[in-house]
Amino acid sequence: MADDDIEMDWLREERTAVAEAVLCAPKTDAQIEAILRQAQQVRHRLLLTRLGPDRFPRLAPDLRAALDYDPVSRTAIVGGLPEQGRAQVALVAAGTSDLPVLREAARTLAFHGRGSEQVVDVGVAGLHRLLRRIERLRGFDVVIAFAGMEGALFTVLAGLIDVPVIAVPTSVGLGVAQGGRAALQSALATCAPGVVAVNIDNGFGAACAAIKMLHVGDRGRIAQGSRGTAH
Amino acid sequence: MADDDIEMDWLREERTAVAEAVLCAPKTDAQIEAILRQAQQVRHRLLLTRLGPDRFPRLAPDLRAALDYDPVSRTAIVGGLPEQGRAQVALVAAGTSDLPVLREAARTLAFHGRGSEQVVDVGVAGLHRLLRRIERLRGFDVVIAFAGMEGALFTVLAGLIDVPVIAVPTSVGLGVAQGGRAALQSALATCAPGVVAVNIDNGFGAACAAIKMLHVGDRGRIAQGSRGTAH
Amino acid sequence: MADDDIEMDWLREERTAVAEAVLCAPKTDAQIEAILRQAQQVRHRLLLTRLGPDRFPRLAPDLRAALDYDPVSRTAIVGGLPEQGRAQVALVAAGTSDLPVLREAARTLAFHGRGSEQVVDVGVAGLHRLLRRIERLRGFDVVIAFAGMEGALFTVLAGLIDVPVIAVPTSVGLGVAQGGRAALQSALATCAPGVVAVNIDNGFGAACAAIKMLHVGDRGRIAQGSRGTAH
Amino acid sequence: MADDDIEMDWLREERTAVAEAVLCAPKTDAQIEAILRQAQQVRHRLLLTRLGPDRFPRLAPDLRAALDYDPVSRTAIVGGLPEQGRAQVALVAAGTSDLPVLREAARTLAFHGRGSEQVVDVGVAGLHRLLRRIERLRGFDVVIAFAGMEGALFTVLAGLIDVPVIAVPTSVGLGVAQGGRAALQSALATCAPGVVAVNIDNGFGAACAAIKMLHVGDRGRIAQGSRGTAH
Amino acid sequence: MADDDIEMDWLREERTAVAEAVLCAPKTDAQIEAILRQAQQVRHRLLLTRLGPDRFPRLAPDLRAALDYDPVSRTAIVGGLPEQGRAQVALVAAGTSDLPVLREAARTLAFHGRGSEQVVDVGVAGLHRLLRRIERLRGFDVVIAFAGMEGALFTVLAGLIDVPVIAVPTSVGLGVAQGGRAALQSALATCAPGVVAVNIDNGFGAACAAIKMLHVGDRGRIAQGSRGTAH
Amino acid sequence: MADDDIEMDWLREERTAVAEAVLCAPKTDAQIEAILRQAQQVRHRLLLTRLGPDRFPRLAPDLRAALDYDPVSRTAIVGGLPEQGRAQVALVAAGTSDLPVLREAARTLAFHGRGSEQVVDVGVAGLHRLLRRIERLRGFDVVIAFAGMEGALFTVLAGLIDVPVIAVPTSVGLGVAQGGRAALQSALATCAPGVVAVNIDNGFGAACAAIKMLHVGDRGRIAQGSRGTAH
Amino acid sequence: MADDDIEMDWLREERTAVAEAVLCAPKTDAQIEAILRQAQQVRHRLLLTRLGPDRFPRLAPDLRAALDYDPVSRTAIVGGLPEQGRAQVALVAAGTSDLPVLREAARTLAFHGRGSEQVVDVGVAGLHRLLRRIERLRGFDVVIAFAGMEGALFTVLAGLIDVPVIAVPTSVGLGVAQGGRAALQSALATCAPGVVAVNIDNGFGAACAAIKMLHVGDRGRIAQGSRGTAH
Amino acid sequence: MADDDIEMDWLREERTAVAEAVLCAPKTDAQIEAILRQAQQVRHRLLLTRLGPDRFPRLAPDLRAALDYDPVSRTAIVGGLPEQGRAQVALVAAGTSDLPVLREAARTLAFHGRGSEQVVDVGVAGLHRLLRRIERLRGFDVVIAFAGMEGALFTVLAGLIDVPVIAVPTSVGLGVAQGGRAALQSALATCAPGVVAVNIDNGFGAACAAIKMLHVGDRGRIAQGSRGTAH
Repeated sequence: MADDDIEMDWLREERTAVAEAVLCAPKTDAQIEAILRQAQQVRHRLLLTRLGPDRFPRLAPDLRAALDYDPVSRTAIVGGLPEQGRAQVALVAAGTSDLPVLREAARTLAFHGRGSEQVVDVGVAGLHRLLRRIERLRGFDVVIAFAGMEGALFTVLAGLIDVPVIAVPTSVGLGVAQGGRAALQSALATCAPGVVAVNIDNGFGAACAAIKMLHVGDRGRIAQGSRGTAH
Repeated sequence: MADDDIEMDWLREERTAVAEAVLCAPKTDAQIEAILRQAQQVRHRLLLTRLGPDRFPRLAPDLRAALDYDPVSRTAIVGGLPEQGRAQVALVAAGTSDLPVLREAARTLAFHGRGSEQVVDVGVAGLHRLLRRIERLRGFDVVIAFAGMEGALFTVLAGLIDVPVIAVPTSVGLGVAQGGRAALQSALATCAPGVVAVNIDNGFGAACAAIKMLHVGDRGRIAQGSRGTAH
Repeated sequence: MADDDIEMDWLREERTAVAEAVLCAPKTDAQIEAILRQAQQVRHRLLLTRLGPDRFPRLAPDLRAALDYDPVSRTAIVGGLPEQGRAQVALVAAGTSDLPVLREAARTLAFHGRGSEQVVDVGVAGLHRLLRRIERLRGFDVVIAFAGMEGALFTVLAGLIDVPVIAVPTSVGLGVAQGGRAALQSALATCAPGVVAVNIDNGFGAACAAIKMLHVGDRGRIAQGSRGTAH
Repeated sequence: MADDDIEMDWLREERTAVAEAVLCAPKTDAQIEAILRQAQQVRHRLLLTRLGPDRFPRLAPDLRAALDYDPVSRTAIVGGLPEQGRAQVALVAAGTSDLPVLREAARTLAFHGRGSEQVVDVGVAGLHRLLRRIERLRGFDVVIAFAGMEGALFTVLAGLIDVPVIAVPTSVGLGVAQGGRAALQSALATCAPGVVAVNIDNGFGAACAAIKMLHVGDRGRIAQGSRGTAH
Repeated sequence: MADDDIEMDWLREERTAVAEAVLCAPKTDAQIEAILRQAQQVRHRLLLTRLGPDRFPRLAPDLRAALDYDPVSRTAIVGGLPEQGRAQVALVAAGTSDLPVLREAARTLAFHGRGSEQVVDVGVAGLHRLLRRIERLRGFDVVIAFAGMEGALFTVLAGLIDVPVIAVPTSVGLGVAQGGRAALQSALATCAPGVVAVNIDNGFGAACAAIKMLHVGDRGRIAQGSRGTAH
Repeated sequence: MADDDIEMDWLREERTAVAEAVLCAPKTDAQIEAILRQAQQVRHRLLLTRLGPDRFPRLAPDLRAALDYDPVSRTAIVGGLPEQGRAQVALVAAGTSDLPVLREAARTLAFHGRGSEQVVDVGVAGLHRLLRRIERLRGFDVVIAFAGMEGALFTVLAGLIDVPVIAVPTSVGLGVAQGGRAALQSALATCAPGVVAVNIDNGFGAACAAIKMLHVGDRGRIAQGSRGTAH
Repeated sequence: MADDDIEMDWLREERTAVAEAVLCAPKTDAQIEAILRQAQQVRHRLLLTRLGPDRFPRLAPDLRAALDYDPVSRTAIVGGLPEQGRAQVALVAAGTSDLPVLREAARTLAFHGRGSEQVVDVGVAGLHRLLRRIERLRGFDVVIAFAGMEGALFTVLAGLIDVPVIAVPTSVGLGVAQGGRAALQSALATCAPGVVAVNIDNGFGAACAAIKMLHVGDRGRIAQGSRGTAH
Repeated sequence: MADDDIEMDWLREERTAVAEAVLCAPKTDAQIEAILRQAQQVRHRLLLTRLGPDRFPRLAPDLRAALDYDPVSRTAIVGGLPEQGRAQVALVAAGTSDLPVLREAARTLAFHGRGSEQVVDVGVAGLHRLLRRIERLRGFDVVIAFAGMEGALFTVLAGLIDVPVIAVPTSVGLGVAQGGRAALQSALATCAPGVVAVNIDNGFGAACAAIKMLHVGDRGRIAQGSRGTAH
């Protein structure tokens, strides 16, 4: 593929508050390398997602050297991280099996300078583990919840806190839960009002939603005085 | 249809611990009447399920007079109820919308002489309502749980008590939860070990399962001395 | 049904920032009336959703008189509306057919004192209609988008603004789009990062999510000084 | 992953009658090892499920040595088995292909001290094989049935015995039966009242349900005198 | 619609052994009447299926008078029945609810001069009812089996007789069995070799398949001598 | 697994006209070997299906030597073939990709002494190929048709011949046709009356159905004189 | 709803070659009336689709008088038809039940001044009906084919002509064909290269596609000379 | 397989305007080689699709030498390309991940002598990339659009140009978009009138549809004078 076929959307962050990122899974090695070289040329920071540990070693050595790669989340970052703010986002996972997806969200937040804190192994089959963390969770600005299987965590959590809950169904599960559809349906059908959902295993997308919320929050704080009177 | 086409399974209770019952929804009025007359002829008690309030008035007056009909559960009983035992079964519903299905279970239990107690409006969006009843629920021999929408109740409940939980997904729900499939998937995909499920809205089937469990319990209590030593 | 079977979650708003509401569709007339009388007794404001125009006239006259009923959104409000804030939420619908769902969101926001502004008939088949409103939409704190059929609106919109976009797939559509599943899949599978989705036709749920976001925003603005230093 | 991320639910058995167990399939080797070391530290017995024969050799030698591993059921046990009671549970499989799932149930029962007996190759295509074992099956306290393909075994069996039947649909099957969904639907849609179902291939879950039933049975036998009069 | 738009396939029976028939459900009254008049004009016998009892009275009186109408099977016959042969086909239904579909098959067979015998209420939940008829069923040339819900009848029956079994899944069923899909999957996924299936509720199609089998049988008997030597 | 767990149904052919066969895919090597040794012991002929070319070499050498193995159809036969009758069955495939399934049917027929003839590459996209063979196909007693993708062959064929058509949908296809579901739906939804279907890729099942039809045909020819008068 | 909420896309035809049309099914009477009055005001011709015969009489008398309404196709036209060109499009339906969808296409073509010719009752179960019209069909510029059930017509037709075939699956069908999904899958999975599909029952959409093809054809014919040399 | 089993449809192009092509995925190496040799024998040009890069090296060296193979599109051509016309078809892809499918279309067009131009990376998340190419796209005779994920490109594009748009959903996507079904549903459910769709990843089919459109266009231009008067 010729390099010039690629047209990166470098102004995405300015326009939408979240930066252009590269979903590597469906791309060829050559396509990923061409994108990386283009990013280097225009000196743009870049986030790569779904870059499997089998894929990373196949990239050119000089490109690999320029990447901050994390095999658990399958993400890579070019150009380093910005200064990290305080942890405004809580990442809450039902089990340790949900960690790869949780880490994809954590890395996406970090890439945008947003701090996060992770809370793992609080599945509702042992409810006490979640209940004793509720007070702490109420202190965050956004909570992203990760759960596979039946996804009951989303409902229980959202019924206990006054913070927005973004549900990320994960593909952890057997039989009818295979592929994450049961957890997704639970997120959408929840009886706890106000839960919003992203696609299965989409830690990146959930983080982007949180970033947009925090972005508006920032803007709000700055503009607050004038705007309140303007209306 | 000629009466003689019907062949009731009058020995079902002896064989399987649960009595023959008639699912009325897919049958014609004439078929239901023929079955009722046959039951009267052989002087057999009989449970009818899914006999809608629009259907009941269409039956012959003498048959209607012989029926103990309950419009909420859409059940009718011929031949009266046996002596009722103590309440060994708890019927726990997430919301008042699940009541018709819960009542079908209650009536089926009553038809077999099994008492039950109902606990309603304990959906997990307001978790405190369930938590304060947990101790009481641990005293029953079987718990049947009814929930539509995302069905998180099944998991939360089963993670808190040492009693068998039979999950009855109900068709209460909108969008992806329409028809009860989301709740059913939650019951099957649950991360709380030991939940068993029946078909959507199948209060009758859940009650039958409970009856079989209690039947084995009764048998066990009687045979306990000799059997323990026999092995 | 006995009135005492109902257990309203009157502290939900305090706990979760969104108030208890009643989904009327799966409830009987008697259940709804019992809930309304309970609300009157404890002098609590209450929102009812999915109360169809065929259903409303069947309620007792004194209850009807106490309700602020809107047939388009199929919502009713007991106890009046609080003071309305400035319009922080934009409600953007692809077509006029999405209006009932949009209005359910508008009424839910109003019930919580949150103002909103509606933008209708901006389906992407005639893209110019949306493009000329983008600048205005960037000024809101949250955008809720409503679309049935193929739901392309969600992606186009989210690619153009830096505000959180909550996608509400509607059941407007024929053939494979029947029931809103195609639009829901588009919301989840979107290539525009940061879109979050709620269940099909769930205007109420989308509004609740927006309310939680605005609630955290309010909190943030108040606590900003101290918290910034605390970390 | 840091060891301290893991929070085992060591009191689960006390609370729910079934012990905490580890579903290995979605976990990393490092996570499983960390869990095993934690179990050793707190001297707790532990059951591991879905630990494939390709996975087991990758664990640290000292941990492997401490495990009682069974490749057919893909289960491992740390800390040995308790004294085994008499066989109260019958495990009935339609074909030899269902054995891995049956064995997972047998091992789960054994881990909890519950004896079981297996009956294999009684698919209903050759009905005589099942019919001649019916009398023997009526002597058990619970029957767990395993079948893939069309799952007719569940219905036939439940129509012939007065013992609770837990249906475990297995993923044995071709074409429309692929993945076990046809067998699952048969278990749920059965015309034999009282069948309950667990997720596809969930031998562990079915055993847990049986354990809860037997647990209540035990409790019942002990408490019988006082409780009967108490009501 | 102009009459001349209709082009009946009057030579279908000669070509395929089964006669042209009219599926009335998706047609307008005018279309059905035009077809009937055309049949009268060319003096051709004709079978109409899915002609609901609400539809029949709407036809022109002279056409109604010419029809042999059966409301249970929703079939009508123009031009009378041919001489009926001996009963070569057994029609076996799990329950009385399957009768409308069974009768559609019986009428289709009769229209083609093929006799049949019906056996009803032999669902496998009470297996003895079927077992005592097995010997008699082995004497027929084809068996058509009708079952909804989980459709276990197909497998049990086919495992006991040496006669072709055509499975007709019926839309009798609740929850996951709604619409007949569970029974259809059982027919296709059966572990009893040699079961063939038709579409849900398709009594007409099953009868046509039986007619083709009997047609080849007739041909075989006639041509047997010469053909045997010809090969 | 102990050998004695296996219970072969050696009387199946006597009872149902089709012999016991072994579906190898879900079985372990040890299970297959145990079955083969049992067959040798009781000197019974046996058909094995779905024995992949990767699997066959793993069997014990002496067992391999005793098997007539065909890698295309993935079938193996123990004990040789009986005398083959004339070709009463036509096997008609839309494309060469359907050959493995067609050959499974051919081998199953041969195992039961039934001859067959194959007609390949007659997909309806080039209709002339099928049309010029119609006359020949009308001479057979049964036609088994194999098609993947959209499965139009079933309808076209059945509309042109007076012989029973058994449709075997194959898993040949891309996109929505993946796995054979589109072809299966075409077989069931066909507008050509009298088509019957078996499961996807089930060449074995289709052959068994044909064998049952021919078996009744044989019986008919023998008993014809007496039976005709008996009625 | 206020009239000014509606924003018609009056320049759609100029931009896309097909005119703005109104899908009436999901709209309220008031919305339709407001749209009609707006069209009258700006003196714009307008096509309305899915305006059911139960709906039409509810419109205001003066608006009804201004509409050219056709109950079969459920379409209405404001402002009359343009001059009709020669019949460049053939509309080919498998059965008379497909007529409402075919007519929707015919009316949409007529609204754009495109002539069409209809060919009905050429289902492939009686193949001769289609074959004798093939020569004539080859003379058109576009063929739109309408079929429900298994949709084999699409493949057969496309394999015989060199003209583009647009497949319109219709919701005519029973059991697995209910709602038109089987026919849709056949259209997409076809083995005849070059078939394109639109949504189920979407006669309007198919006509629009044809209009775009003819529009490019017209443009081509006009610009042919200059363009050929320009490249 | 014997060579003579293969019956190529060499007259397909004459009959349908698109040439016979070979779908290699479901065929064996031997089958592909036999087809290639037959093509060489009759000196016919031939297009092979879905010939994976792992498959190509396994073919006989002399056949490989005769093939023009392209690994990206997985296509091979025997007999060279005809003279290429001007680029009448635009191939528009949402992302670089869609390139393999786009290239399959490009190669199919080239095989038929039709030129094309590709436009890549114009996904609607960055709408400006598409908008600035709209004018150029309006100059083509057909546009084929390729998109996975939510497939919003199809609607946006079709709402902006007056050229036929053929939508090719691709299997690029995660979670609910896996396998391309979400994009397919968007193509079918689009609110932009006139979009037509082919099967998922079916670049070949889309190109064939375009070829038929261009073929009629050519024919039209030639016959225009006489035909216009003939009508």
